[in-house]
Amino acid sequence: MTLPPEFALIARHFRPLAGAGALDLSDDAALLDPPAGRQLVLAADAMVAGVHFLPDDPPDTIGRKLLRVNLSDLAAMGAAPLGYLMTCAFPQGTDDAWIAQFVAGLAADQAEFGLTVLGGDTVGTPGPATFSLTILGTVEPGRALRRAGARPGDEVWVSGTIGDGALGLLSLTGRLPPDPHLAARYRVPAPRLALGQALSGVARAAMDVSDGLVQDLGHLARAAGCGAVIEAPSVPLSEPASAALAADPALLPRILSGGDDYELLFAADPADAGRVLAAAKAAQTPVARIGRFLDGEGVVVLDAQGAAIPLPRGGWSHFA
Amino acid sequence: MTLPPEFALIARHFRPLAGAGALDLSDDAALLDPPAGRQLVLAADAMVAGVHFLPDDPPDTIGRKLLRVNLSDLAAMGAAPLGYLMTCAFPQGTDDAWIAQFVAGLAADQAEFGLTVLGGDTVGTPGPATFSLTILGTVEPGRALRRAGARPGDEVWVSGTIGDGALGLLSLTGRLPPDPHLAARYRVPAPRLALGQALSGVARAAMDVSDGLVQDLGHLARAAGCGAVIEAPSVPLSEPASAALAADPALLPRILSGGDDYELLFAADPADAGRVLAAAKAAQTPVARIGRFLDGEGVVVLDAQGAAIPLPRGGWSHFA
Repeated sequence: MTLPPEFALIARHFRPLAGAGALDLSDDAALLDPPAGRQLVLAADAMVAGVHFLPDDPPDTIGRKLLRVNLSDLAAMGAAPLGYLMTCAFPQGTDDAWIAQFVAGLAADQAEFGLTVLGGDTVGTPGPATFSLTILGTVEPGRALRRAGARPGDEVWVSGTIGDGALGLLSLTGRLPPDPHLAARYRVPAPRLALGQALSGVARAAMDVSDGLVQDLGHLARAAGCGAVIEAPSVPLSEPASAALAADPALLPRILSGGDDYELLFAADPADAGRVLAAAKAAQTPVARIGRFLDGEGVVVLDAQGAAIPLPRGGWSHFA
Repeated sequence: MTLPPEFALIARHFRPLAGAGALDLSDDAALLDPPAGRQLVLAADAMVAGVHFLPDDPPDTIGRKLLRVNLSDLAAMGAAPLGYLMTCAFPQGTDDAWIAQFVAGLAADQAEFGLTVLGGDTVGTPGPATFSLTILGTVEPGRALRRAGARPGDEVWVSGTIGDGALGLLSLTGRLPPDPHLAARYRVPAPRLALGQALSGVARAAMDVSDGLVQDLGHLARAAGCGAVIEAPSVPLSEPASAALAADPALLPRILSGGDDYELLFAADPADAGRVLAAAKAAQTPVARIGRFLDGEGVVVLDAQGAAIPLPRGGWSHFA
């Protein structure tokens, strides 16, 4: 079945995703009254088949991952979702059922996270499926979480568990045994929106972990003009990740710098630990203290004996 | 020369494009205080090498076209530019000089149109270069030009000249003799921002011509629940387009439905013709009356003798 013409495609699949301001996706642009007394928060991410997701990933998970990696950027700023615009470049021959599933994933996540599509574009491509999503959120003016702001002595915190996404990719590509939990974490990350909002005014600095814990902590430390240390045994692992690591200790670097975590990484004054835990409880999101910021530069990972663990330089760059 | 890592790439090339709110492109998202008392206008378009531009187009024109097709959507709403987010999927091996030229085109147009980049993403792709841009503009609340609103009896107006973009593509691909004017119109369209803003409160309905005059007039008529007629001799042509048509009358369908015009197409009450001309003069943009809206449905194109000119159905779909 070949792709229907662009306009029929939009009417059939994408119009049902449209909300207030989208003008039924039938005008040149969307119209939006910005919520009074709020600052806008804006981010955009692109995903390419074979680079950011597997070409045979279920189509509904591809739409959801695209939306969720952008929601994760809002979470990292302490923002609440407002809406999104999306462009889709579909390979020639993409069938209608594929697009219907892709859209069904978006519809489910729109309902879960409380936002709708405002606009976008649908084109054909001779290359791999390529998607781009721009997300809009809002935050109380001056209350956004920023990357800069950590101070030497601050504690390093992270939400959820680390390494599942990277191990999920290994599992989906046959380099680790199949594991539904890890695969789901790779395909459908959990943006920590409630936690991000609860940490506003509590955390001194925050970002989401997309490129790998070590590399992203390096960004947070660099933005603060300092260094950081991670205590590897404190890094929270899921049960499947723990089991995989026990079976093959050489997986540690992959866990710590493999990326695709979409957890929140943040800095807080040790005196605020109680407030951090209260925010996490309110957001029903587990958090763990995994290290601290220090004078100096760079990120060091220590093992249980306090010895530095050698890691490959940097994280996972899509250009590497 | 291979592509530098993503972060160095952003710092070197894209950070200089960043303006207020972009946080130096080094945070998870941008922060924007929405201008007080204005409604936001949002649109997104994608472009794929070999589909929406020629792979050997000068890189600066590719960045400019991407920005301008989005600015054209703002123009069609009567909006003023505010900022944009852009995602770039560069093929492996894209060299630094190519990106520098691409960015130089964006920098020139940012200065010309008064907007800056707010955020985005840069990824690699095994496929063709693929770009997506989300534009933000503002309009006085309730004053946006909309697609729906034309009434039978209204006149059809269009800005500038029609067909240059489509003939420019033919000229650049060797199907017409080389022509610098036509090539420039294909590569670097002129968004009619001043005209769009001047037409707010004057035109009853408007859109930009991207898919072809006939097809886009069909959209405008359908949104109004009516039909429309175009008098072909009234359609404004540039000198090179007139010469090409004189040499080959079979080019008429391509001129009327080839797309890539990015002119404004709008409806106005005949009693408001003076106000339209005053708006056009204030915006220093030529406009022409090319037909009228009628009871019924569909678009008919008439020749100088009032006979219908047969045209291939529809315009130019990227899926056709």
